[in-house]
Amino acid sequence: MTRWAEGFIAVDWGTTNRRAYLIGENGDCDREFEDGRGILSVGRGEFEAAVREVRERLGEKPMLLAGMVGSNRGWIEVPYVPCPAGLDELAHGLVRIGDDIAIVPGVSLSDGRYDVMRGEEVQLLGAIASGQIPADCLVCHPGTHNKWVRVSAGRIESFRTVMTGELFNLLRERSILAEVISGQAVAGEAFCEGVKRGLSGAGLTAELFEARARFLLGNLGNDDGASFVSGLLIGGDVRVGLHDMASSRVIAMGRPELTGLYSAALAECGVATDEVDGEGAFIAGAKQIAERIE
Amino acid sequence: MTRWAEGFIAVDWGTTNRRAYLIGENGDCDREFEDGRGILSVGRGEFEAAVREVRERLGEKPMLLAGMVGSNRGWIEVPYVPCPAGLDELAHGLVRIGDDIAIVPGVSLSDGRYDVMRGEEVQLLGAIASGQIPADCLVCHPGTHNKWVRVSAGRIESFRTVMTGELFNLLRERSILAEVISGQAVAGEAFCEGVKRGLSGAGLTAELFEARARFLLGNLGNDDGASFVSGLLIGGDVRVGLHDMASSRVIAMGRPELTGLYSAALAECGVATDEVDGEGAFIAGAKQIAERIE
Repeated sequence: MTRWAEGFIAVDWGTTNRRAYLIGENGDCDREFEDGRGILSVGRGEFEAAVREVRERLGEKPMLLAGMVGSNRGWIEVPYVPCPAGLDELAHGLVRIGDDIAIVPGVSLSDGRYDVMRGEEVQLLGAIASGQIPADCLVCHPGTHNKWVRVSAGRIESFRTVMTGELFNLLRERSILAEVISGQAVAGEAFCEGVKRGLSGAGLTAELFEARARFLLGNLGNDDGASFVSGLLIGGDVRVGLHDMASSRVIAMGRPELTGLYSAALAECGVATDEVDGEGAFIAGAKQIAERIE
Repeated sequence: MTRWAEGFIAVDWGTTNRRAYLIGENGDCDREFEDGRGILSVGRGEFEAAVREVRERLGEKPMLLAGMVGSNRGWIEVPYVPCPAGLDELAHGLVRIGDDIAIVPGVSLSDGRYDVMRGEEVQLLGAIASGQIPADCLVCHPGTHNKWVRVSAGRIESFRTVMTGELFNLLRERSILAEVISGQAVAGEAFCEGVKRGLSGAGLTAELFEARARFLLGNLGNDDGASFVSGLLIGGDVRVGLHDMASSRVIAMGRPELTGLYSAALAECGVATDEVDGEGAFIAGAKQIAERIE
């Protein structure tokens, strides 16, 4: 039995947040915390200290790090594993720092199209390993960057990223649309109207400005702006995902407030959705990878 | 002869900049300046002082103000004039502050689609009045928000706004694409590749992320990122403009570094472009409106 089998800490270390889980010898998650110490808040040369912080809270255990911590802005740039990628490929591509730290590689695609992911792969493959999703399916994983992922025989076969979340946040924080979309997006009538426009592919950058014009001319209410624009972006996103990866059933994995919006948009296309919680899937994936560490 | 005929100051007062021109009795532009005192840098209640600054530099003359100064974020919100709109309609819609200040209304569209402009209308109608462009044509007016404008019998008949410039700037300043597009966009091979992708309408928010993936995977060079993404956005923009307003000849009006990129993108569609300088057109339009002031 390796030291890792006696328990370890798994960290989902993203750009703005990190979530750390203490996984006990029996495989249960004994303790966890989330904080704002994403990689952008950790300076060069400060990752060892940032790791110590985690151990001070969860114990002196080996650590498995996934997500943007392995990017060119993170601690060490871990080369991507190309598609098709399963748990064995991820485990094989781990970069070790001493005996008790391992960083998970991201996954890349370069089959004519180009794409990259870091972090979602652990959740996805964990969800398969734990039986939450089938070994052959289409997954939609919304977040800052939504990922449409074709899973085949338990491995990530292909995927496509759409920067919907980031664009919505940029527009809300910094653009001329800020006042139009300051509210909360909900999956009602205005959202569905936006989805239909987005699905039509008529020209996102024009549709966005029209939302502002409608607002100024009294045709779009204060409460509807965020929902309409969210629908517009998610409609365009679903258009790309279903075009690339036609499917009559989609698994939406991630935060419920986002998977709910994608489910509503997919329903407009007659596509059924199963919503899956990403957190449990991450823990399952981390355990699978840790078991493969010598 | 009204006091306005003895000379006046015309100000193109935008969001981030303002340009002021002293127009003499003979109609020539005698002096001018540009500064960073766009409406966002002028607080509520400070517009009278901001106007005094202009007169201190150009003289105690009547002032004609155009652009965002008449918006809900400007000095006074001046109601839009609906399409079709010509110089007479603009002059009729002026809002006066005392005898010697007049603010030009913007133009709105609400014929099923909704749109608004503030500032471009003076340039456009000025260009027609001074014979720079014909009374029936399609104009492309790039800037923060590109405007496709259908001119008919010397009036603005219809238009469509695409927020290409603002989106490019947001992506460059704040997004995960920042490092990819930090360079200068030029109308070469990478730009044309982006234009073709944009024209295809395959899904802007996905194509944008793919630019980052290509950059990370070594498929898009440091020097090509800005050109490719600029091409992508302008290609999508041209797709909207030509779809709405099919034409085999377009007039591109505005700053030469932008009209040049749009000309190159339109050439990819087999559309010929005449480039027109917007500054002279603004002065011509301001003079036409001032002549209509009682």
